[in-house]
Amino acid sequence: MDDLIVRVAQRLSAIPGLPSGARLAQTAPIPPPDTPVAGYIDHTLLKPEATPDQVEQLCAEAAQHRFASVCVNPAYVPLCVRLLNGTPVAVCTVVGFPLGATTTETKVFEATQAIANGARELDMVIAVGQLRAGRYPEVAKDIQQVVDACHAQGALVKVIIETALLNDEQKVVACLLAARAGADYVKTSTGFAGGGASAADIALMHRAVGPGLGVKASGGIRTLADAQAMIAAGATRIGASAGVAIVREAEGDTAVPHGEGY
Amino acid sequence: MDDLIVRVAQRLSAIPGLPSGARLAQTAPIPPPDTPVAGYIDHTLLKPEATPDQVEQLCAEAAQHRFASVCVNPAYVPLCVRLLNGTPVAVCTVVGFPLGATTTETKVFEATQAIANGARELDMVIAVGQLRAGRYPEVAKDIQQVVDACHAQGALVKVIIETALLNDEQKVVACLLAARAGADYVKTSTGFAGGGASAADIALMHRAVGPGLGVKASGGIRTLADAQAMIAAGATRIGASAGVAIVREAEGDTAVPHGEGY
Repeated sequence: MDDLIVRVAQRLSAIPGLPSGARLAQTAPIPPPDTPVAGYIDHTLLKPEATPDQVEQLCAEAAQHRFASVCVNPAYVPLCVRLLNGTPVAVCTVVGFPLGATTTETKVFEATQAIANGARELDMVIAVGQLRAGRYPEVAKDIQQVVDACHAQGALVKVIIETALLNDEQKVVACLLAARAGADYVKTSTGFAGGGASAADIALMHRAVGPGLGVKASGGIRTLADAQAMIAAGATRIGASAGVAIVREAEGDTAVPHGEGY
Repeated sequence: MDDLIVRVAQRLSAIPGLPSGARLAQTAPIPPPDTPVAGYIDHTLLKPEATPDQVEQLCAEAAQHRFASVCVNPAYVPLCVRLLNGTPVAVCTVVGFPLGATTTETKVFEATQAIANGARELDMVIAVGQLRAGRYPEVAKDIQQVVDACHAQGALVKVIIETALLNDEQKVVACLLAARAGADYVKTSTGFAGGGASAADIALMHRAVGPGLGVKASGGIRTLADAQAMIAAGATRIGASAGVAIVREAEGDTAVPHGEGY
């Protein structure tokens, strides 16, 4: 694993025009060791058919269980900000989601408006096709501009690399480009491209970005055991639509049916 | 079918604040009767992992076969406009795609930039969750603002209603709202929500919007028979990634493998 990371890092260092890595992440997004599992969870509802009522329920659950955030589509940010005002639960939204194939300018516009609407965490999707084509400067610039816009307004950025569409070398490239651009987290999956988080990917991503960045596991995490395996592998945040089931399982109530993935 | 359409139209007429329907579609997007099947096809590549090389191939195929357009993600519009300059093939892109859950402002920004980059047709996704929640004024306003921005710059708008997530009544509502907002086409599917075009949906949508608007069938159209069934049901445009296979089949070359859906 480390051989691959070193080899990719050396290759990237030889490419002119990439971000230098001198920019620091906004915060150290590492939960303290005694954090309950709820504190890792971005309580997530990104289905296109999600209704305002379902988003209201999501927010009520997040406030009750003290999840780290709710993660919703951008159109629902104002509703969530209003409902979660006065709670410690952050509002997280997505940018260029789920294909990552909008323009950089649209990603920046979308992120900027979401932050103005009250979002504090932004999960952006990289330009997956450009990465697979080896166009690393384009990928880096796309990440960089979103990160800069978000950090200028005090928001965290998670960079979704969409592991299901990448080989291990490409996953490492994506992580290193995100780290060089000053992102706060790397994140495995949108949940819309098949696959999902694996402990092996989390371990690889954690090694690639180092201890200063967070790693968010998302896609197919339905049980407490799933979440614990991700945390053991290095995940510092969990994206899941099954957060309530996971928390109840942690509280010893194993009769609760598992939520669906997203 | 007509009973349902009449009933929904009456119900919408009683809701204050909806667009009046006084705005006209940009053009009459109805192909003449002798149009070859290629002239119906939006040659489509919307996968997140699509590379620039694949988009170049798409454009070469579109120019060769004289498809109506290429349909690509917004980041690839400038490349397609450059490659198709001097051909009759239009560049089509997508807005709020595929979830429809970005803000109206982001949809307008995205559409406006795409047109500035040379796109002539825009396929926007409605706010599906709002529609399912019965919030019709919000859905109408979202469509209206994108349509107005596109028409102000001379571009066509297709409104993706995402049939897989709607019941028949909701499909009719979505079609009537799109028609009232002055859209040029209604379109069945993104291809990312399961399902896809059916002849029954095309017939319903065609009846709902009337002969002045186009209807685009998309999702799962892989063969000439699929395309012909959609056109017979009222489709005036076909979105497909299998356009080359369909055209070759129409030319009598049935040995060509079918392309994959998108």
